[in-house]
Amino acid sequence: MPRFAYVNGRYVHHPHATVHIEDRGYQFADGVYEVVPVHGGKMIDEDPHLDRLEHSLRELRIGLPTSRTALKMILRELLRRNGVVNGLLYIQITRGVAPRDHKFPQGAKPALVVTTKRTKPTATALVENGVRVITIPDIRWKRCDIKSVSLLPNVLGKQRAVEAGAFEAWQVDEKGLVTEGTSTNAWIVTKDGVLVTRNANEAILNGITRQAVIRLTNEAGVTFEERPFSVAEAKEAREAFLTSSSGHVLPITRIDDTVVGDGKPGPVTRRLRAAYLDYIAA
Amino acid sequence: MPRFAYVNGRYVHHPHATVHIEDRGYQFADGVYEVVPVHGGKMIDEDPHLDRLEHSLRELRIGLPTSRTALKMILRELLRRNGVVNGLLYIQITRGVAPRDHKFPQGAKPALVVTTKRTKPTATALVENGVRVITIPDIRWKRCDIKSVSLLPNVLGKQRAVEAGAFEAWQVDEKGLVTEGTSTNAWIVTKDGVLVTRNANEAILNGITRQAVIRLTNEAGVTFEERPFSVAEAKEAREAFLTSSSGHVLPITRIDDTVVGDGKPGPVTRRLRAAYLDYIAA
Repeated sequence: MPRFAYVNGRYVHHPHATVHIEDRGYQFADGVYEVVPVHGGKMIDEDPHLDRLEHSLRELRIGLPTSRTALKMILRELLRRNGVVNGLLYIQITRGVAPRDHKFPQGAKPALVVTTKRTKPTATALVENGVRVITIPDIRWKRCDIKSVSLLPNVLGKQRAVEAGAFEAWQVDEKGLVTEGTSTNAWIVTKDGVLVTRNANEAILNGITRQAVIRLTNEAGVTFEERPFSVAEAKEAREAFLTSSSGHVLPITRIDDTVVGDGKPGPVTRRLRAAYLDYIAA
Repeated sequence: MPRFAYVNGRYVHHPHATVHIEDRGYQFADGVYEVVPVHGGKMIDEDPHLDRLEHSLRELRIGLPTSRTALKMILRELLRRNGVVNGLLYIQITRGVAPRDHKFPQGAKPALVVTTKRTKPTATALVENGVRVITIPDIRWKRCDIKSVSLLPNVLGKQRAVEAGAFEAWQVDEKGLVTEGTSTNAWIVTKDGVLVTRNANEAILNGITRQAVIRLTNEAGVTFEERPFSVAEAKEAREAFLTSSSGHVLPITRIDDTVVGDGKPGPVTRRLRAAYLDYIAA
């Protein structure tokens, strides 16, 4: 079955899906994206993802290339054509094609690209054993609330993690406080048993999975605080985990060379993972 | 005459010059670029530009898509095909095409795109009257020495300048010190007559025109210091100017709402502009 991509009004075979070299996404990283998980043929949190997409576009003053209704139809049609049951939708919108010049172009039409990807469930070993994160300086720009394609520092951070044999890199600000992973949000259960994740402002991306898990904290029967935490506090924590659209809730059992808690996924992490999996299955 | 672009081994008509939607330049800003000015049919500072291109690639561990010799032949051939006598060459290299995943892909081939643009000489009014800059917070990442396509903050800054009726925006770090413009380097002649531009480290791009002008400072008969300067110091300066590959040496006569010196391009700026124009004409 050929795989299709949606590119500016057309469904095209993926290998032939192209954009012009003067698309501002290519020359200026002048665009935004969303990754919407698909589970059992259904999108998870479609509207929250599209809300955030519109937030990103609004902050950059990029227009909507289509109405939300039309975009939803495109997403469904692409899933159907590509026969995706479990996987994800990738949506990218840029300011469009224009002769290269930093300032916003006059009259450029925003460009829309959508692709799909099939994914397998998270490997059991990762869930059962937990993963390792390393800590690195956060060298990103100051508007990480915008989900822009300006991802070069995230790429470099993820590569550092991979080369260190870790799953993810936690980025750390100048005060020694963890901001977030390169494509995931960061959580701990402190040594006093308080569930903590950083408050969402311009320093982090407000993850859709993060928001869903916050709604589920009541079910986990745990005190919850939204505030920054330091690397030192994380290394003394009982539990740690990460959240993302693709990994859901994934336990962290080592931070740099420090074993978290007893080195096994903790009870709060397990309860929240189960609650989140129930939520997306519902 | 049709305009050509060079894209991954082929000279193609510019309107049909495309890259794949999974080129990492498009999805991750995982690429670098150079803009080489062309004057009287000759490239200005070609080797320094290619040296910096290689620095950027090395820092990101992106391979060279061609040898320097081959790249130089491509640049010349594209200038010839497009009949460019005065203008610029735009060179972009990305990590190549790969299924979307933050970490470096295995086996992706770096992608090379080259375009040309014809330009007119800088408008006389700008040179004679000087331009205005505004000051804005520097919100960029911490590796501005790499000339990456991760230019979204520069785009937003330039747009702010345009909307304020200014030519450029000077970005200011958390200490109140000017880093650089969104696509230009920043210079002042202090109230005590010292020529100052910020020292080149990871906070700024080490402009090729900046480097050429530094070499010309002796001719200008002026004391020169490479160090950061504050907005306050700039507003008390006798002169201010910016340097870039396209604008050369351009006087600044207003910073925000403060008139610089007597509001006219100063003698040091004029001497350095003349010296630089002599240099590129030689």
